[in-house]
Order: sequence, then structure tokens, then C-alpha cells
Amino acid sequence: MARGALKIAVIGGGSSYTPELIEGYIKRRDALPIKEIWLVDVEEGREKVEIVGAMAARMVRAAGLDWKVSTTLNRREALAGADFVSTQFRVGLLDARIKDERIPLSHGVLGQETKGAGGLFKAFRTIPVILDIVKDMKELCPDAWLVNFTNPAGMVTEAAIFHGGWRRTIGLCNVPLGLIKTASDKLNTPVDALTVRFAGLNHFNWHRVWDTTGNERTAELIDLLYKPGVAVDDENRPKNIANIEFPYEIVRDSGMLPCYYHRYYYAESDMLDDAIKKFEGGKTRAEEVKRTEERLFALYKDPALDHKPEELSQRGGAYYSDAACELIASIYNDKKTEMVVSVANNGAMPDLPPNCVVEVSARITAHGADCYAVGALPTGVRGMVQHMKAMEQIIIDAAITGDYDKALHGFALNTLIPAGSKGKKILDQMLVAHKDYLPQFKDAVERIEREQPDTVAYVEGLLGGKG
Amino acid sequence: MARGALKIAVIGGGSSYTPELIEGYIKRRDALPIKEIWLVDVEEGREKVEIVGAMAARMVRAAGLDWKVSTTLNRREALAGADFVSTQFRVGLLDARIKDERIPLSHGVLGQETKGAGGLFKAFRTIPVILDIVKDMKELCPDAWLVNFTNPAGMVTEAAIFHGGWRRTIGLCNVPLGLIKTASDKLNTPVDALTVRFAGLNHFNWHRVWDTTGNERTAELIDLLYKPGVAVDDENRPKNIANIEFPYEIVRDSGMLPCYYHRYYYAESDMLDDAIKKFEGGKTRAEEVKRTEERLFALYKDPALDHKPEELSQRGGAYYSDAACELIASIYNDKKTEMVVSVANNGAMPDLPPNCVVEVSARITAHGADCYAVGALPTGVRGMVQHMKAMEQIIIDAAITGDYDKALHGFALNTLIPAGSKGKKILDQMLVAHKDYLPQFKDAVERIEREQPDTVAYVEGLLGGKG
Amino acid sequence: MARGALKIAVIGGGSSYTPELIEGYIKRRDALPIKEIWLVDVEEGREKVEIVGAMAARMVRAAGLDWKVSTTLNRREALAGADFVSTQFRVGLLDARIKDERIPLSHGVLGQETKGAGGLFKAFRTIPVILDIVKDMKELCPDAWLVNFTNPAGMVTEAAIFHGGWRRTIGLCNVPLGLIKTASDKLNTPVDALTVRFAGLNHFNWHRVWDTTGNERTAELIDLLYKPGVAVDDENRPKNIANIEFPYEIVRDSGMLPCYYHRYYYAESDMLDDAIKKFEGGKTRAEEVKRTEERLFALYKDPALDHKPEELSQRGGAYYSDAACELIASIYNDKKTEMVVSVANNGAMPDLPPNCVVEVSARITAHGADCYAVGALPTGVRGMVQHMKAMEQIIIDAAITGDYDKALHGFALNTLIPAGSKGKKILDQMLVAHKDYLPQFKDAVERIEREQPDTVAYVEGLLGGKG
Amino acid sequence: MARGALKIAVIGGGSSYTPELIEGYIKRRDALPIKEIWLVDVEEGREKVEIVGAMAARMVRAAGLDWKVSTTLNRREALAGADFVSTQFRVGLLDARIKDERIPLSHGVLGQETKGAGGLFKAFRTIPVILDIVKDMKELCPDAWLVNFTNPAGMVTEAAIFHGGWRRTIGLCNVPLGLIKTASDKLNTPVDALTVRFAGLNHFNWHRVWDTTGNERTAELIDLLYKPGVAVDDENRPKNIANIEFPYEIVRDSGMLPCYYHRYYYAESDMLDDAIKKFEGGKTRAEEVKRTEERLFALYKDPALDHKPEELSQRGGAYYSDAACELIASIYNDKKTEMVVSVANNGAMPDLPPNCVVEVSARITAHGADCYAVGALPTGVRGMVQHMKAMEQIIIDAAITGDYDKALHGFALNTLIPAGSKGKKILDQMLVAHKDYLPQFKDAVERIEREQPDTVAYVEGLLGGKG
Repeated sequence: MARGALKIAVIGGGSSYTPELIEGYIKRRDALPIKEIWLVDVEEGREKVEIVGAMAARMVRAAGLDWKVSTTLNRREALAGADFVSTQFRVGLLDARIKDERIPLSHGVLGQETKGAGGLFKAFRTIPVILDIVKDMKELCPDAWLVNFTNPAGMVTEAAIFHGGWRRTIGLCNVPLGLIKTASDKLNTPVDALTVRFAGLNHFNWHRVWDTTGNERTAELIDLLYKPGVAVDDENRPKNIANIEFPYEIVRDSGMLPCYYHRYYYAESDMLDDAIKKFEGGKTRAEEVKRTEERLFALYKDPALDHKPEELSQRGGAYYSDAACELIASIYNDKKTEMVVSVANNGAMPDLPPNCVVEVSARITAHGADCYAVGALPTGVRGMVQHMKAMEQIIIDAAITGDYDKALHGFALNTLIPAGSKGKKILDQMLVAHKDYLPQFKDAVERIEREQPDTVAYVEGLLGGKG
Repeated sequence: MARGALKIAVIGGGSSYTPELIEGYIKRRDALPIKEIWLVDVEEGREKVEIVGAMAARMVRAAGLDWKVSTTLNRREALAGADFVSTQFRVGLLDARIKDERIPLSHGVLGQETKGAGGLFKAFRTIPVILDIVKDMKELCPDAWLVNFTNPAGMVTEAAIFHGGWRRTIGLCNVPLGLIKTASDKLNTPVDALTVRFAGLNHFNWHRVWDTTGNERTAELIDLLYKPGVAVDDENRPKNIANIEFPYEIVRDSGMLPCYYHRYYYAESDMLDDAIKKFEGGKTRAEEVKRTEERLFALYKDPALDHKPEELSQRGGAYYSDAACELIASIYNDKKTEMVVSVANNGAMPDLPPNCVVEVSARITAHGADCYAVGALPTGVRGMVQHMKAMEQIIIDAAITGDYDKALHGFALNTLIPAGSKGKKILDQMLVAHKDYLPQFKDAVERIEREQPDTVAYVEGLLGGKG
Repeated sequence: MARGALKIAVIGGGSSYTPELIEGYIKRRDALPIKEIWLVDVEEGREKVEIVGAMAARMVRAAGLDWKVSTTLNRREALAGADFVSTQFRVGLLDARIKDERIPLSHGVLGQETKGAGGLFKAFRTIPVILDIVKDMKELCPDAWLVNFTNPAGMVTEAAIFHGGWRRTIGLCNVPLGLIKTASDKLNTPVDALTVRFAGLNHFNWHRVWDTTGNERTAELIDLLYKPGVAVDDENRPKNIANIEFPYEIVRDSGMLPCYYHRYYYAESDMLDDAIKKFEGGKTRAEEVKRTEERLFALYKDPALDHKPEELSQRGGAYYSDAACELIASIYNDKKTEMVVSVANNGAMPDLPPNCVVEVSARITAHGADCYAVGALPTGVRGMVQHMKAMEQIIIDAAITGDYDKALHGFALNTLIPAGSKGKKILDQMLVAHKDYLPQFKDAVERIEREQPDTVAYVEGLLGGKG
Repeated sequence: MARGALKIAVIGGGSSYTPELIEGYIKRRDALPIKEIWLVDVEEGREKVEIVGAMAARMVRAAGLDWKVSTTLNRREALAGADFVSTQFRVGLLDARIKDERIPLSHGVLGQETKGAGGLFKAFRTIPVILDIVKDMKELCPDAWLVNFTNPAGMVTEAAIFHGGWRRTIGLCNVPLGLIKTASDKLNTPVDALTVRFAGLNHFNWHRVWDTTGNERTAELIDLLYKPGVAVDDENRPKNIANIEFPYEIVRDSGMLPCYYHRYYYAESDMLDDAIKKFEGGKTRAEEVKRTEERLFALYKDPALDHKPEELSQRGGAYYSDAACELIASIYNDKKTEMVVSVANNGAMPDLPPNCVVEVSARITAHGADCYAVGALPTGVRGMVQHMKAMEQIIIDAAITGDYDKALHGFALNTLIPAGSKGKKILDQMLVAHKDYLPQFKDAVERIEREQPDTVAYVEGLLGGKG
């Protein structure tokens, strides 16, 4: 890897999170000899990336640094000679997420951004783009590292590594950071005085916790977090996940601590009831986020603002960007920091195929993530994670090929979507609704439009004719 | 194994299927030198076993055979010195099955006898009994083979082999027989001119089909059976499974032919709609079966009847008993017949742990089932079967230990039961409803009765106070 | 697969074994509607193939059949439109085998044709040719089956399947046939009344034996064959393997019956002593075989001879060709005959990678070999077979690439060749001696000739300057 | 684990290495709040342990510490309440090692202390003792950690963990430390600036090396260490391993760096030639070591000596004891130090069974070693390590059961011992020679003594009648 004078490219640079990323880099000014930061976005995001770019430049200047901050709609210009590329783009922006949630919920089914129907469509929209990025990288920056935090991060990372052939990809998520913070809060013990080991998939991981005397504290934490009458809410819970109680008995029996998203699996009926209630009350998470975003961009426009505003932290997704900077600093400096990352399995989880992506605890070295060996998982965790991985792999294949059969097969495997006519209806409607961002599914969409006028009418009715 | 003068013990001998079994043995009179057949049942089944025993004796006599047919309520008497033991008992009889179906359906959830909530409770009631039988066999007939066709056959067989330590157990089911017959019908080719290879779990297997020229006919069969506008109903479909259309695209993508029960997974919402409609119309499968049974026993009482009545074939479960006789004849004569059986995996399906039970194609030899190596399964099938096996294993553990946490964990893993409050409600109600047959769950039942008067009241209301 | 009017191509048709093959086909005249048999050989073998071809034609005529028997030096002509291709060629003929044995033995090391230094060089000479044949087959007879019995059959078959991409390859060997016959003889039980299950690699397999009552007879056979003071020689032992006693204790502990070749591993020092004694007495197996061959061809020349002469049976390698005919008849007629074959592992032996070739018991169907699942092997067998497979794979890679490092690495892994200077000396001398048949090793040979005049001189001295 | 006031028990405390261990503890006085150190030995070692104990006490005093240093022949007294137990005992002392080497060499076979015939007998003598120690620990110090550096460390550790059931065992060896130092020396880079990852078994591991920029330096190191004409000797090579050149081509092809002991496998014939030459010159390694030991004890007796003498470093086995202290300090302080240790595999090396011991890179935490996931090994390494593990497991079983068949089977699998009559002769002679320390082999020894007078005579002749 080149030493010094680093060029960093941020794909989806117009994101409202970018100031956090810039702050993360500024904090690590001594560890990372940055020369240029390029914020890339697409035409639809031109205004945003310009606002954010100007804000980033002010932040850098205020920190007394001479880094060049550029914005561009030409991805190739940003990638040329880059040392690190981070991806945080959102194909179709938040409007797509609104559809991801509204269509399933209108049928009484969870849309759920990362592993529900919404997440699968996010994979369909995103995976072809990540493969394009990887193709460009092979040509323009063949030694660069790709740090992905575009969701669904596990599937997107698997596509980049195993379908794009870019082994120097690491997927990152802030969920483990929140869980570690929670363990620390509840046990009243500093993060550094705990050993936390994760295993699973992105947004579908489990962990165990030990203290410095070698005692496992997992069972105690399960009680503190989930025992009825004892537990109080975990304030690190992401804002997009409802405060639904976990079934204590299951968590206790599973032998590991679940992540926030496991509510969708261990407390499925309650999460659904809650989501439907909110949907009927007119609130989807996506629309709420959209309003927050608008407020943030109003702030960013202020030419006097030269530091990350407090409001951003409340956006959800906290620590994300900071974690990305830490990951990059750890690679660059061979720091061997312990992080939880999405990387090639390679035997770390023997219950899954070696050539897939898993989310596990690892040490981040200059040559990549050295994962800890997880060993065989407890029975229940094993079954859930094997099933989810199969679904992910079929969805990745569908995203790449545009094969309708695979898309429907993936939907049927998804435990949040009822298989059968209902799931098919949702799939068809979402294909029509998202067609502008799904060129690979062109044939399927045309067939549906031709043969199923009801489907088209439903989508138009629900979304106000903006397909 | 002893040669000649065979003693055969039939646990659950009072079953309405017994005449089919007797017919099967009579057909194989030359292959099996039977001396005694013992029909065992419990006190509750005394009347039935006596009726069936008399009928069986008449059948044997009519065939000109000198076999001794005995009935007993003393299982140990029947097991002593037995060469083959077959199990077809139903703990709690059909009344239990009625509860298995009504309680879940009253919450809009599938009861489904083998893999749904009903099947799990059938496992809870049956597994402790099979372990008792195995314990007796170790003492009383240490060289005997155990042929199990009590459902859920996969879990019961796994308990016998891996928890009871009785390696000479083979689980049997008639579903594969129906599927092979269907392949033969649809391809208009004799069964002997097809090679059919199964892999999966009981009531959850997939198969592929080849002809005598080596051409694989799987895709063609998928079209014949499931292509919209082409397929007509499969008349071998078991009567307990509604004629709901399979999603053709998924079956095509899965690369294998599903079994009848896969409708519950690939067409979940439609199966549920259908079951609820029937339930609201007052019909559960269990009640229908109960009426059929009553008609059959009325016939069996007729002292003139000395052969299997035609009505039995319409009972559902056809071929079952004949298959059991064939299995026993194949073991006794080292015939190496090809059959589909539930046996120790031992690497036949590398996607599952070696020490669990799978349902695969095998040759039946005098030393047991020699399974064909299945190899790695297609992605979707792999994920489903791994998930199901984990659920089965947790349920088996719950059945043995009476651990409430494990029971709830197994319920949460079951894709037909919504995890969360709803699933827990169903579990609790079923525990109360079945308490007489669940001694291992005594503590849990007492706690529920103490703490949740609503649960008890609901059960009484639904089932007419006969909990 | 085409039906009727079969064309069969025999690569290495000039082999002295061909009459046995022809006899095998004649015996199966009713099962196989043969139209043409093509015997292919290379220029060096022109005389032999013509003699054998004429003899084969006489045999066919004497049987009253109208099959066309052709000989050719143009392999493509024979392959065009073939239904079955069998390979029994020997690159470099017996002169090469003489070198394979003499060079190692001159250093006190076993040459051993199949797994020793000689076998490795046979792989080096043969694998590039099999890959050429497969390339031709893809073009000229894309539906044909390839039945390989060229040694080292396991490695050659693995190259064809996994490097050539020809999945319709089955490797065949007569060793298991001899072992089954031995079990039958020693237990005084017909072959049909025994179930014999093999696992391992070609010339490196183990087996277990059961009778029709399900009793395992393995331990008894170990006593009958190997117990000091009890055992007498096994007359099915191939003539090329010295009658050295197996260490009874090891065989007993291994839990399985070894094959003849295991003497090289379990009784290494004694086999070596014996081979050196014979070598010093001037006798190598290769030279003995050469003399037998000469006698056979003298017989074949007799225009009155129209059936397989008795002398051929004494040649060693008996049953081989008959087994090949049986294999082909079983594929063609979907007979599901049980045979021991070298085929893709695909999980049959979980101790080895799925994508390698193993030698196991299987049923031969029209769509190929359906292997029985072997499951985990006993510890000692497991370690030996894993080690041997690694050696085979490195040797296959060396044979394809001509990479000297890999060749030396494979030699070092071979337990019959002492790693270090001595092994390297043997490798170098053999490369020089065989250079005419090793175009892929051209660079290595030239380097040795340039840098190591001693090596060249040694070879010339030993082999009379005919390198 | 208890905090503060640590009690440490050293089994084999009379070893000449003990002063290095004491020095290691003194160096870590701030990290380890030691209260007592107990040196345990057997009657035979009484004099030595008293000399060393006195010396240790002087060292502690000179360091100004108040630790209590005790010596005892009563192991249970030392174990009672211990926090850490380290094992460095040598059953039969150096006289046993002399026999281990002389008997095989007298037959032209390598004795080799750890993986050759000598090592196997060391396993036979040691494993029953370690299992006894573990039994005592369960009773007397159930929370203690066992740090084993008695050779053969891998097999002894596997016995403790998987046969003794003591999961809190970590095996330790100084070989990796030497290899890391060598990498650092040759690359002229500090140890801290390299990432070195090990995989394999004790005295049979391989490693790869990266620098802080993420570049892999393995190939470069192979050139620096083994390329003919470039490489110079590695001064960290243990004194017991002859300076025999590695075959450069094999190391290059293997893709990993070998350990010193791999000379026995990659350069077998040269190592053997060298050992025989030395043996004929009257020098075995064991006798040399014995003389060094005598010199050391002479020094230790000096009441003025209160620090580790320089001569000890030249003894071979340097760093060993220091590594043990570091391991203990890392457990006690949850330091997460990266070390190479022998621990339960648990999937770290997927090429080996999960329930065996492997030697891999790990982080040492308060709850044990967290291993890095190694993933699939290169082909050659895979085969060698799988074979060696099978041999180790058979030898462990032989050591526990005293089963002669298993002992001979293990000998046959050992690639340094020629299988067959010669190997059997060596086994029998060694059993007789070591009989005093092999109570589990009593029956076998008596049979040999009864039936094979030659064997007894040979041993007496070779060893001067001191059998």
C-alpha cells in the first residue's frame, strides 16, 4: 500500500452522515496522512453533495488542515489513484426506502430495511452498483481498500468479494458498537475491560461477553437486558427498531446475546403488530428519516457551521462513520484493533460455507481482517444463521442476474415475508415501484406490467402514481 | 439376527392401520418365517386393540397360516424376545390431535400435525415413550430392529438413535412412495424404469428423477406438476394436505422436486388461508379422521370380515404398512431393496451434522440402511433443511428435558408459528391442554396454571373444559 | 445417450489385454447392441494394435457377430461419434516401466508402479494425454462415457474429471474384484451372499464385509487372512505384489481390511528388502511382464487363434477388462450393478475434499455412479488417505504444469520415497530418463542436463545409454 | 479466577530450566502478585529439586521479593489451592531419552525426541502422568490453569484436554518464538513490526509473515533462509536439530515457512545420514544434554549464585520458560498478548477435527486462548498435518490403554519409522527398555520377554544390561 499523501474517495458523499466521517478523519489527523478527500454522488444528489462538500471543506479548514476536499459526479475521477474507498450510497435515495416500507406494510407484512422485503430490494438496487464500482477500482485504483457501509452491508460485501472478486473489501456496521456499549453500560464496566466476541451475519449477529478475570458475563447480561421485571430499555437500541420486549426464555436458551434486529425473529408477531399500528398511524421510519435529513441539510447550508452539529448524532447510525475511520486507520497503521466486520468466512464460522461473508470479531491488520475462530454455534443460532445465509445468497444471485424465479425464491425463504400468493404480490408490486433502479429486472417488470394491470394500479394508488 | 420363527411386536397395535400391516405380512409369507405377532396398546386403547386383534387373527387364519396373533396391554411381554418391533402408536389418540390443530388455528396459526405446532406437541408426547421402549428393548430383545412410523417420524427416530442409543432403528414414511408413484404416473413410465433420489428430512424431503437412459427428468416433472395452465392435481397427494398450488417459479429455481408438505413453506399464506377457512367452517383434519376411524372400527367388528377393507385405503396413509413389511423383509433377507428411510446421517447429507437423522434414499441390507451420498444441496434447499434440523433438535431436547425455554425456542424457530407473544400464547395453551401426556413439563404447566388463569380459561372455553 | 448401434473406442487398443475386453463384450452381446469397436494406438504400437486387431476380428467372427472391428493410429477418427471410450494406454510402453522401477531400486528405493516413484512418473506421462483425449471428446463425442483403467487410475481419473471437466468419467480397477473374491473364498460364502463396502483411493482402499444375516465378518476375515500361524496366502493377490506378511496387529487395529498394496505402507521395510533382493537378482516386475507380453503377442499372431488364450489370465490384471464391459453394460442398461469405482467424491468420504476422486462402492446407473455414503473413517485410515490424496493432487498439478517444485514436493510427500537429497536424485534421473514423454518438463530436464552431468551419466550407465 | 496472592506449582521443578522460569516470574513481579512457588519432583529427582529450589530461593531473595519458594516430593501438597500449574517434567529423566535415541539409531532409524520413535515413547511415559495430574487438579485446584511444556507438548496437551477433560490447559513451545526471531533477523525488522501467523501441530507447524504495510514477506523469507547460494544458517535453530539444508523447491512450493523440525520430513534422508554418522561417532543428542545438565547443576550448587547463569541460555530450549511466564501473566491480566499455543482446535484449522489440539496463533485472554481462524491449508501442508494428527491420536490412545496393536499402528503411521518388521523390532525393544515407566504396557512387555529372548538380549547388549 502506498505510504503518505492518501487519497480517499467517498461514494455517496452527499449523505447527511458525511460530516461525521469528516470529523472522524480530523480526529485521526496524526494517524492518517490525508491529502485529498473526494465526495462522489449521482446527478440526483448533486445539490446535497455540494452542500455537504462545502461544509466538509469548512470543517477541514477550521481544523487547520490543508486537505483538499472535492465533490464530483464523476465517480471515475474520484477513484483514480484512491487509497481507500468508502461506500455509503443509497440508490434511489430515501424515496426508495419509503416504497420499501409502505408496500409490504400495506399487506400487513414487515418492510424492514435490511433483512425484510425492503432490505431485499435495497440489495437488488445496490449490488449491481457495487459491482460496477469494483470494476472501476480494478482499473483505476487496484491497490485500494473498499470499506462498505451501504446496507444490506453483509450482502453487498459478499457481492463485492465473491462476485466482484475484490478481496480487499471490509463491510462495517455500527450495530456491534452499540451492543458493546450496552454491555459496558449494563455491567458498569469500561468497554476496554470486556472481551466481546461476535458471530453471525450483518444485522443478524450474536455475541458473548467476558470480563478481565475470565468470567463469562453473557448470562448475567441476558438477565439485565431481558429478564421481565428486571430489564430496562437499552438506550443504544437504534431508533429504527421498536422497543419490543425480547422473549427472555429464548434468549436464555440460545446461549448468546442477540442483536437488536433479532426482535424481528424472536418477537416477530409483536414487531409486526407495532409496525402495522405505526403504519396505520401514518408513520413509516423512512418518512421520519426524510424529515430529519431535511432539517440536517438546512443546518449544513449555514456557511458559519464548521463542525458536526449535535442533531446528527440523533439521526441514528451513530458511530458508523467513526468506525469507518478507525477501520481505515487500523489498516493503514497495522494497528490490529479489534473490530466486528463483515468479511470472507474462510472457516471462522464452520457452520457456514467458507466462501461467504460473515460478521465476526477480528483484528484489523495492514493485510486485512484476521478473524477469530468461532467454532460450532449453539443449535438454534446455527439453524437461523444457516437459513439466513442461504436466503442472502439467493437474493445476491437474483440481484446480479435479474432472475425473477430467484427473487421469488429468496422472498419465500425470508421468514418475515409469508411465502405464497401474498409474498408474490408484494414482490411484483415492489418490482414495478422500483423499476427505474432495477435495469436487471427489466423483462420481469415488463411482463408484470403487461399481464397484471392490478399490480400497476395498486402501486400507483398506494404511492400516488409515482411508480 | 435370529433365523426363522420370528416374533414381531407392534406398538400401537390397536391402530386402524393394523389390518394393512397384517396384509403386508401375509403377502410376504414366503420371505418372513413369522411365528408370532403381538399387538400392544395402552389401557385407553384396550377396546380397539381387541377389535383389531380379532380381525388380524381372522385374516391370518383366512390365509391359511398358523401364526399366533396376540394382543396385550403389557408392552414388556410383547417385546421379550422380539425380532422386529414396529411403532405406530399415537399418545393421547386422536383427541390429542384435535387439540393440536384447534388451538393454533383459533389464533390464525397452522396446527399441522408433523412440523407445525401440532407436530411439535406430538413430539413432546411421543419421544419420552419411544425412549422408554428403547430402554425395554435393551433389556428384553437386544438384537431386534425397531421400525418406527410414529410421527413426527424424523424426530422420533432421531431420539431413538441418538438419545436412546438404539442404532438399529429405521424410520419410515409413505410420503416418498406417493411421490415416486406420482413421478411414474406423470411421466407415464413404470416405477422400475425410474431412478428417484431423495434427500432431506421426514415430511421435508426433496427428490430428483432420472430415466433408464440416464436423462434427468426433474425439470420436466416440475413442469408437469406445477406449471400454471399445464399441471393437473396429483392424485397421490395425501388427503390431509390441501390442494394448494405450488409457486412454480420457486420449485423451478430450487432445482429439486418438493414433497407435498412443502406447500406449508413455499405457499405458506395460501395454506393458512385455506386452513382458517376450513376451521371456521368447523372442519379440522383431526375430526374428519376421527369419523373415518369410527367407521373403520365398526367394520372391523364384523366377525365375517377377514381381509383389509377397501375403506382403509381411503384413510390416507396408504402404503405405509406395506412399506414397513417390505423394510422388514429386506432386512431379514438382505434384499438390498432401495427405500427412502429416516436414519443416521453419517455424512450422506454433508450440509447437516453427521450425528442426526435424515431421510434419504438407501439400500436396505441385513446390517441396516446403506445410504447414497447426497453431496451438497442447492442453496435454497440447504438453508431450509439446516434450519428445520436445528428446530427439530431443540424440540427433541425439549421433549426429553421438559425445559420450557427450549420449547419456546423451538416454537420461535418454527417458521409456521409466529415468534413472540402469539407463539408463546399457543405454547402455553397447548401445554395446559395436553398436560396429562406431558409429565416432563409438569413444572411449566403448574406455573402457567398458577400465573396465567386466562390461559386455562381459554383452553377450557375452546375445548369444552376437557383440557 | 444414444440407443442401439453402439460405437466403442479403445485407446491403447494394442494392449495385450484387448482380447479379454473383446471376450467381455462378446459375453454381453445381448446387453450391448455394439456396431463398431475401434482399437486406437500410437505409431510405436502400430504392430501390436494390428496383431490384436486381427485377433479381435477373428474372435468376433467366431462368435457369429457382425461387429466391425477397426484399428487406427488416428485417435480422432475413433472418437468421432463414439458412445463409450475406454482407456488402457501406456505411454512409453513397458520400456518406460522398466525405468520406473530400475532407477529407484538402484538407490534402494521402491519404484512401485502405482503409488511409488514409478507410479508418479506414470502419472506425469499419462495425465497430459488423458487431458488431450478429453479435449477431443468434447468436440467429437460430447455424450460419450469415458471408462479409464490406465494407471495410476485414481490420479488419471481425477485429472479427467476435475482438470479436464469431463464429469462422465469412471475409473476402474480389478483390485477390489480380487479382494471380494478372496473374502468369498476365505469365508466359504458365495460373492452374492456378502456385502462388501470399499472406501479409499485407487490401489489404496480399505473394505468391510457383512453376510446376509447382517453380521459383520471383517474381524474374522482379518484373522483368516493375516493371523500368524492361521493365515495362508491369498491366491488372488496380484502377481506384482510380493507375498509379504501383513502386520496382523495393525490390520486388526485399523478396523478395516486393507488392499494388497497396503503392504507397501504397513510392511514397508519388508517390501523394500524383498524388492531389493529381486532387483539384485536382476529381476524387476517390468521385465518379467515384458517377457510375458512377448509370449502373448506370439500367440496372438496365430491366425487360427480366435478366443482369449489361457495364458492371458496368468498375465495379472485379470478381471479388469471384464469389469470394464460390465460397467459399460450397467450404464447402458441402467442396471444399478454394485461396483467399486473411482469417481468424484462429492461427500461420499467426508474426510476428503468433495471435489476429488475417491474409490468407493457404488451402484452404476445410466446417469453415472451413485456412491454409498462412507462416513467418517477410523483414525489411522483417515490419516493415511488424507495424506495420500494430498500427494496425488500435488502430483496431478505437477503433471499438468511441468512445475519442478511441485514434482519434488510430491516426491517428498510420498512415503515410499525418502525426502531429501536421495529423493531429489531419483526425481532428476527419472526426468532425464523419461524426457521423451515429458514435454511439459522440458525446462526442468534441460536445466538438469546442463547443470548435472552426473545425473545424465548415471542414467546412461544404468539404462545402457538409451535414456 | 482468584485475584492476588497467587500460588504457582511447577511439576518437574528440579529441571535445569527452573532458574529461567524463576527469572521470568521475577521480571513480571508487577504483573503477577505471587505469594508462593512450589517446585515438585519425584524421588529420583530429589537431589536436583533441592539444588534448584535453593537456587530459586536465592534468586527471589536477591530480587528483594518475599515470595515463598518450597520444594516437595508430594505433588498434591503443591497442587492444593494452586492458581497456575506448569508442567516440565521428564519421566525417566535423561536416561530414558538416551534409550529413546540409541535403540532406533542402532537400526538406522531416527529416534528424534518429539515426533520420532523417541517422541512416541515419551508420549507413552508422560500421558498417564498428565492424566493423573489433571485428576488431582479437579480435586485440589479446580479453577487453576495448566500450562504444559512437557514434550511431546501437542499430544500431552491433547490428552489433558480431551481425555482428562481439563479445558483450561494450554500447551506451550519455544519453537515459534525462535522462528519469529529468525523472521525478524532476516528481514531486519523488529518483531513488533511483523505479523506472523502459525498453523499446524506442535513441532510441526508452518507460518506466514506480513509487514506493517500489509505486504506478505513469506516468499522473500523463504529465499533468505533456504535459497541455495543465498541462505546462511539460522542461528535460532535449536541445538538438537542438525544444520541440514531444506530443499528450497519444496518450501517454495508449499507456500508457507516450515519449522525447524520439518527437516525430518522434507529432508528425511539427509537428517538420517547425519544422525547415523553422529551415532556411529558415539554422540547422541541425549548424552550431550546430560553432560550440559551436569555442568549446570554444578553451577547451581554454588551458594553465591543468585541469578540465571549465562550457560543456561546455551542449553537449548531458550525462551521457553519466559514464554510460560508471559502466558500466565497474559491470562492473569487479560492482556490479549498474541502467542502461538497448543489448544483445542474448535474450527481454527478446518482441515482437522474440531476436537483435537492444534498449534496456532492466538490472543491469550483471561478466559483462555482465542485462536485466529486459519482456513484451508495449502494441499501439501494439509496432507502432512492430517496424517500427523491421525498418528498422534493413535499414539495417545495407545498411551492411555497400553494397547500393543495401537502402539504398532502408530509406529507404522510414523513416517520416520519404517513400517514392518523393522519398526516392530524397535517398538518391542523400546517397550522392554522402558518397562519401568510403562505400567500400562505390562502385558505386552511380559509377552515380549517371554516369547522374544532376542529382544531382551539386544536391549541389554545395547544399553549395558540396564534395561
